[in-house]
Amino acid sequence: MRELDETSVTAEVLRRYADGTDPRLKFVMTALVRHLHDFAREVSLTEAEWFAAVEFLTRTGQMCSNVRQEFILLSDTLGLSTLVDSINNPWVEGTTRSTVLGPFFVQDAPVMENGADIDGGTGKGEPLYVEALVTDVSGKPIPGATVDIWHSDHDGFYDVQIGAGDELARRGRFTTDAQGKVTFWTTMPASYPVPHDGPVGQLLELSGRHPWRPAHVHFTIAAPNFRRLVTHVFVEGDPYLDSDAVFGVKDSLIKEYESHPPGRAPDGKIMDRPWRSLAYTFGLRPAESAASQAA
Amino acid sequence: MRELDETSVTAEVLRRYADGTDPRLKFVMTALVRHLHDFAREVSLTEAEWFAAVEFLTRTGQMCSNVRQEFILLSDTLGLSTLVDSINNPWVEGTTRSTVLGPFFVQDAPVMENGADIDGGTGKGEPLYVEALVTDVSGKPIPGATVDIWHSDHDGFYDVQIGAGDELARRGRFTTDAQGKVTFWTTMPASYPVPHDGPVGQLLELSGRHPWRPAHVHFTIAAPNFRRLVTHVFVEGDPYLDSDAVFGVKDSLIKEYESHPPGRAPDGKIMDRPWRSLAYTFGLRPAESAASQAA
Repeated sequence: MRELDETSVTAEVLRRYADGTDPRLKFVMTALVRHLHDFAREVSLTEAEWFAAVEFLTRTGQMCSNVRQEFILLSDTLGLSTLVDSINNPWVEGTTRSTVLGPFFVQDAPVMENGADIDGGTGKGEPLYVEALVTDVSGKPIPGATVDIWHSDHDGFYDVQIGAGDELARRGRFTTDAQGKVTFWTTMPASYPVPHDGPVGQLLELSGRHPWRPAHVHFTIAAPNFRRLVTHVFVEGDPYLDSDAVFGVKDSLIKEYESHPPGRAPDGKIMDRPWRSLAYTFGLRPAESAASQAA
Repeated sequence: MRELDETSVTAEVLRRYADGTDPRLKFVMTALVRHLHDFAREVSLTEAEWFAAVEFLTRTGQMCSNVRQEFILLSDTLGLSTLVDSINNPWVEGTTRSTVLGPFFVQDAPVMENGADIDGGTGKGEPLYVEALVTDVSGKPIPGATVDIWHSDHDGFYDVQIGAGDELARRGRFTTDAQGKVTFWTTMPASYPVPHDGPVGQLLELSGRHPWRPAHVHFTIAAPNFRRLVTHVFVEGDPYLDSDAVFGVKDSLIKEYESHPPGRAPDGKIMDRPWRSLAYTFGLRPAESAASQAA
């Protein structure tokens, strides 16, 4: 086939994948080519637009570093990350809904004891007491589960965005106790814009979209024989709950972070200023059903 | 809309583009989101595949430099470049078909006189005499047209791929004479693999595809009141004519590069070894009809 035009080129590209030895790669690449070509035909993509896309993707790649992943941000702001999460983590009765991991997760966060204060002692922002209960789908507590927590500071910045990213704070790895619980002190997270000084931020702005996310605390929870849960708990009342720039909000993940006057906290600590509290129960799915459903 | 799942997330992403003030950007972005989401749903994209794609795109961006455009190469090998060319340059009777620009075009190539030898004096490869006639759709010659030419050496390498890319060769900008002709000497181009030491080459290999292009000479031709033509003339008999890695071949762009014994060439030059010749007529389209059809 040598007289390739607007219509025939697609069939010829698909034919070239016929000899591939990896059936999954062949399936994914041929679907990608079909959709990519259909898109270009549908919008009658101009040569100037094609070149603008080449330049955009190049700048996006060159913005990436060990503390910045601009392509994940692009995927997040196009709703692709939420879509892939939804495809791979269908909801099961009795479990907590998942949401996007986001770009600020750190492997091997500092190990913490229950009751610890993970704020790093800045003394800024409202104190927050968190009690997380981890259960199976029947509500039975799971002791010994590993719970990773991270969130922004009161100004909306993560530890890794501040300075050289060397000092970790508002982040920790806990283990549930015999009652399936993790407790800790920190400070209230704030709503914040996703990094918007790069190509993805420019595209949001040109498209009339804001870069803000509603305030939340991230949780990932893992336990033997259970499927790992990646989720957030959002702060009820946040003005960005209906327009999260990365499409991560789900109603069941919004919770009131209760306000309290000065006085005695649940762990006996005497608070000399107002404080907040969050209690949330996380339901995990057995690993077996996950494997059978994700196949 | 807060309970975003595999189906509802797409509508919510599209809704966020409702406030865009640039109607074309809104049209293109919403079509892109629809096709991207349909693709991910159709193949049930896994989280591992999503992350592999993020890493692939990041490496592709980071491979780009001032002498390497890996995203154009990706577009070329997915047939997107040929598709965009076909959409924007529909064929008109009496004109030469267009094909992809490729990554080796250089702005402001050295200006050459008709009859010049543009090989740079390597003395390697078979000598080639080229006579290009430029006409309008009725066959009337166009004097004063600007003709840019570039091609690989006898080993399949372009000047900019050799050394630091400082020495230009087998490349030049000519002007058609009163008879609408450009003539020059060079050496025969060879078939060659597209640069395949990067992510795009890895993807071709994993997909069971070869990176080769059939031998060709590039031409871009511009003249006042005519639409710029970007094309190649391929060497008849090349083994890769039916499997060009970038989908650039069209039957009407394949021409015999005639073989001649030692003796007198058309410009009077006495050749002491065998030589080849190419004569090709290029038909240009009026700029008016181009504008009306491309609208």
